[in-house]
Amino acid sequence: METIGFIGTGHLGYPIAENLVKAGYTVKIYNRTREKALPLELLGAELVDSPEAAAVKGGVVLSLVADDKAVEAISTDALLQALGSGGIHVSMSTVSPDTSRALAARHRRQGVEFVTAPVFARPEAAAARVGNAVISGEAAAKDRIKPLLEAGFAKNIFDLGVDAGSANVLKLMGNFMIGAAIELMAEAFALAEKSHMDPRVAYEMLTTTLFPGPVFRNYGAMILDRKFTGSPSFSAALGLKDMDLVLQTARSTYTPMPMANLVQARLTSILAKDIHDADWTALAMGALEDAGLNSVPE
Amino acid sequence: METIGFIGTGHLGYPIAENLVKAGYTVKIYNRTREKALPLELLGAELVDSPEAAAVKGGVVLSLVADDKAVEAISTDALLQALGSGGIHVSMSTVSPDTSRALAARHRRQGVEFVTAPVFARPEAAAARVGNAVISGEAAAKDRIKPLLEAGFAKNIFDLGVDAGSANVLKLMGNFMIGAAIELMAEAFALAEKSHMDPRVAYEMLTTTLFPGPVFRNYGAMILDRKFTGSPSFSAALGLKDMDLVLQTARSTYTPMPMANLVQARLTSILAKDIHDADWTALAMGALEDAGLNSVPE
Repeated sequence: METIGFIGTGHLGYPIAENLVKAGYTVKIYNRTREKALPLELLGAELVDSPEAAAVKGGVVLSLVADDKAVEAISTDALLQALGSGGIHVSMSTVSPDTSRALAARHRRQGVEFVTAPVFARPEAAAARVGNAVISGEAAAKDRIKPLLEAGFAKNIFDLGVDAGSANVLKLMGNFMIGAAIELMAEAFALAEKSHMDPRVAYEMLTTTLFPGPVFRNYGAMILDRKFTGSPSFSAALGLKDMDLVLQTARSTYTPMPMANLVQARLTSILAKDIHDADWTALAMGALEDAGLNSVPE
Repeated sequence: METIGFIGTGHLGYPIAENLVKAGYTVKIYNRTREKALPLELLGAELVDSPEAAAVKGGVVLSLVADDKAVEAISTDALLQALGSGGIHVSMSTVSPDTSRALAARHRRQGVEFVTAPVFARPEAAAARVGNAVISGEAAAKDRIKPLLEAGFAKNIFDLGVDAGSANVLKLMGNFMIGAAIELMAEAFALAEKSHMDPRVAYEMLTTTLFPGPVFRNYGAMILDRKFTGSPSFSAALGLKDMDLVLQTARSTYTPMPMANLVQARLTSILAKDIHDADWTALAMGALEDAGLNSVPE
């Protein structure tokens, strides 16, 4: 089976790389901290010592790293030369649309296609391959890499056309909407608790009628249980990074987004208070504490 | 079959009263503007000329009127005396929790039970009896009136206990969450359009994965289509009235709700611009226009 490269085996990259190895691909893995990828070597992956060593001529390299700086840092000239003409770099990181557009142009000058494919999935969903992929980039390159996304994490793939930045925009829209949904539930549940009404009946009613689906169901339960810390699968720091990207994109496109400003301020406050192991759901603590309510489990 | 009273055959009251007549109840109807109820007389209802004339001793009267003042105006001493001991007043209007609590106390002094049962349904859903009821009040009274709610509009009934105000709180939470969801979609879609990305693919992805359900699906489509005016089934003026009630309740319980402030401001702007026949979804025009986007259909 095809040999592919994989760069970045963090919280989310690890289960995706593992799925690809298990699917039978020959996977060459580069991770800045080599030890974190060691268990994948036991499963049959080959660990390499540089981004370019993960590439084969005309092949595919997938990357999933922390931020814009990191995806720029791994997109070295050496990597692009190693991929060469007909090669594809699949960028799964959540970064700014403008970064993807600039990288796409630089890749193309070396004959390499750049496909943006950010991941809609918490790590457990990626492991179970029930995540959602959104992709944008050149058509033939997208067709070629779809099976890799399905083998790696995706149940559904949504195609946003040729602009490399479009998939990032949708990822940022989605994370903004989740963050805003957490804030709006926190305000609504605070009103219920301050009115001495049982918020659990309200939760049950709202999430079985008007607001079904995983966001209101899962984050709503975390708010009611004050389950804001422990082992975050998406930390407050990463959430703030994403809201920064939302507002940076909003700024550069001239799109005023007052709700995004509010969510960013809530997350900034969680970082200010240096709350250990905070999940980004902790942004709900702001509305609860502002209302004089307890924000930790009883 | 039982004789019941019905007060208020507006947009939402009319289809509920019609369902009760069709279910075989003998319905005595009072509406301030008598003409609006005339078609119900042809179906077999009896039109009466005062709230108290809708009541029978020990019976049930349902009311669905515009606001706090209107429900106080129809809850006359004459009505309470006509209902008498064992009678029940079912208040389906969206009013403040404190108004319901005060009315419940006044009813009880006359031996009349007061059950709060606001309606979660647009008129078409009420007509099809697929709406949701949330109820609070005295237990035996609630048991007695549940069949009426089912015959009138409700597929599901959620019970919030004895406090007459609790059902109002949940109704206000729900409407606040819908209003906030409209604003957050408007901001997200504005970001998509300003990024030259197809918002319809984003809509499809988001409403089939993270945000399923009627609110995001229906209001999202209205925002994409700029379908803000025409024949509103829930007008901007009524939406603003509800956000006023949300913030009045937030104020009296000391619950800061910055998102509710934003939604109220958006609706206030729609009223300021005197937009003819505006549905409350028109609050989305604020985020679109702020971003320099067209807010009317092309």
